[in-house]
Amino acid sequence: MAVTLKDVAERAGVSRSAVSRTFTEGASVSPKTRRKVEKAADELGYRPNALASSLTTGRTKLIGLVSNNFHNPIFLEVFDRFTRGLQERGLRPLLVNLTDETDPEGSLNLLRQYSVDGVIVASSTLPPDFSRAFRNAGIPVVHSFGRQSSTPQVHVVGIDNAECGRMAVRSLAARGYHRIAFLGGPEAATSTQDRLRGFLDEAGRTPEITFSHSFAEAYSFEAGRAEMLRLLDSGSEAEAYFCGDDVLSIGALSAVRGHGLSVPEDIGIIGLNDMEMARWENIDLTTIRQPIPEIIESSIELVVAMLEDPGRFPEARLFPCRIVERGTLRAVP
Amino acid sequence: MAVTLKDVAERAGVSRSAVSRTFTEGASVSPKTRRKVEKAADELGYRPNALASSLTTGRTKLIGLVSNNFHNPIFLEVFDRFTRGLQERGLRPLLVNLTDETDPEGSLNLLRQYSVDGVIVASSTLPPDFSRAFRNAGIPVVHSFGRQSSTPQVHVVGIDNAECGRMAVRSLAARGYHRIAFLGGPEAATSTQDRLRGFLDEAGRTPEITFSHSFAEAYSFEAGRAEMLRLLDSGSEAEAYFCGDDVLSIGALSAVRGHGLSVPEDIGIIGLNDMEMARWENIDLTTIRQPIPEIIESSIELVVAMLEDPGRFPEARLFPCRIVERGTLRAVP
Repeated sequence: MAVTLKDVAERAGVSRSAVSRTFTEGASVSPKTRRKVEKAADELGYRPNALASSLTTGRTKLIGLVSNNFHNPIFLEVFDRFTRGLQERGLRPLLVNLTDETDPEGSLNLLRQYSVDGVIVASSTLPPDFSRAFRNAGIPVVHSFGRQSSTPQVHVVGIDNAECGRMAVRSLAARGYHRIAFLGGPEAATSTQDRLRGFLDEAGRTPEITFSHSFAEAYSFEAGRAEMLRLLDSGSEAEAYFCGDDVLSIGALSAVRGHGLSVPEDIGIIGLNDMEMARWENIDLTTIRQPIPEIIESSIELVVAMLEDPGRFPEARLFPCRIVERGTLRAVP
Repeated sequence: MAVTLKDVAERAGVSRSAVSRTFTEGASVSPKTRRKVEKAADELGYRPNALASSLTTGRTKLIGLVSNNFHNPIFLEVFDRFTRGLQERGLRPLLVNLTDETDPEGSLNLLRQYSVDGVIVASSTLPPDFSRAFRNAGIPVVHSFGRQSSTPQVHVVGIDNAECGRMAVRSLAARGYHRIAFLGGPEAATSTQDRLRGFLDEAGRTPEITFSHSFAEAYSFEAGRAEMLRLLDSGSEAEAYFCGDDVLSIGALSAVRGHGLSVPEDIGIIGLNDMEMARWENIDLTTIRQPIPEIIESSIELVVAMLEDPGRFPEARLFPCRIVERGTLRAVP
């Protein structure tokens, strides 16, 4: 019943090796032979089976790409870069959407069943335990945008979130804002916790500053807008906000303008990420740039390195952030 | 070397069937047995292999999800809904990113190699030939957001793009705009061609209207902005624009405001899609709503139906669109 490689070779009048090479990425085969083989394969309905060969090679070339916030526009860039980067290396992303879920068990079992060669967890909110579950199951894993650690138990690629919190305070102070606030993402997110820690640390040792903080329910426009409305309605006296990320900032901007206040004259806003739409003129957000391309490229490099050496010692790779000046903070005097 | 199901059963002290059921989605197994099996599997490093079993069942439960514009924020919603809808049915999305590529051969060979059970092409720009290549290769395929046809050769789920063009003209005329223009997506995109056709058709039979049209290079913010800047600089006299989609509209809005013109007083804009950020107050875009959730749900239903009946006769499913009134067109007088 099933059409075999041999059948295709006979019909095309070529060797079995030529058929095999036609369907192996990167293998050399003449255009003429390729055409003959593809024609014969089409006629016979032959499907070369990467999965069957995976049973002998032990490699599926599937990489689980796990994420949990499809409401945040930053992920469009993240998925674009991950899928392209993996494809360029002959690897295939198996997308796992954990939006609104936090149970690691389900995704672990799922990705085991598909015998993925490795897993990339792309999330700034999931705790280190989540990635460790993959490591403990013997699956190479890299946590992108994860919590940094000086003793990482899995590969982590990202930024120093606490330093970003400090950077935000310093930049607000330098611009003469004296009453500042942190409008964070969800309280349980590691990135929120770490950014808050840095914010409190730096604000606490800056005498001229008074400060406060609160949390939004998610890294989303709606949550940022709702939290800023609540703050304005409850008489918040902050002159400037460090918002947990760009999409929260855009929601906050919307709330501020909805209250008839102007930015940056009445209220200043600084975000974090520098996602594509932060530079749209309609938004024009001053923000702390997280080097997304470098983080993703490095994450892919690490997962590829682990395919060769699964016992590779875990490392934390941190990339520096910088402030991108746009229109939502007043200028340094 | 490889740990087998039998090894796990022995260690856990349960039957082989119990192990199998533990790792089969939806199969019945007691929580106690499940725990024993999972513990034994962890200790032995056993990985149940969905792919190995696919060789006997002929099913991988992998669905190729092919798209070609990761620059358009609408795709975040599209991916979210597709991945969740597939996951709920025990199916797994294998993401294929064709951004900046148009060669169907590559993705066809790739998805064949992975023996996907089916393919969903999520694109309003790729021509029908693209999806037909999968059908011709014997792979169940559904084209979501594809060009409608009264004689579809593959399943197509989407909207009547020509009717959207007509709807845009009628709504602009009803608001008293006399000089109107279509600022379309890329000229080669089927959605651009069909929306333009309806636009020209309706505008041509509306005596009080003068009209023109042009194309942006992509469905992206930058392309919409660049084309609107070009139009304004070249002295376009249009009072209102039907932009090919929402992200083009947001780019166009940015250009209009950058020129010191106000919306909707000086220039009106209507988009198409009603993506999440169209309702952000910062954007507040009047647009033609495409029913994305229904289109995606219906696409998944069709691909699932084809898994049962691969010979299922192709159909075109069209969903009605409607105008969502916001702040970028003046009111109907």
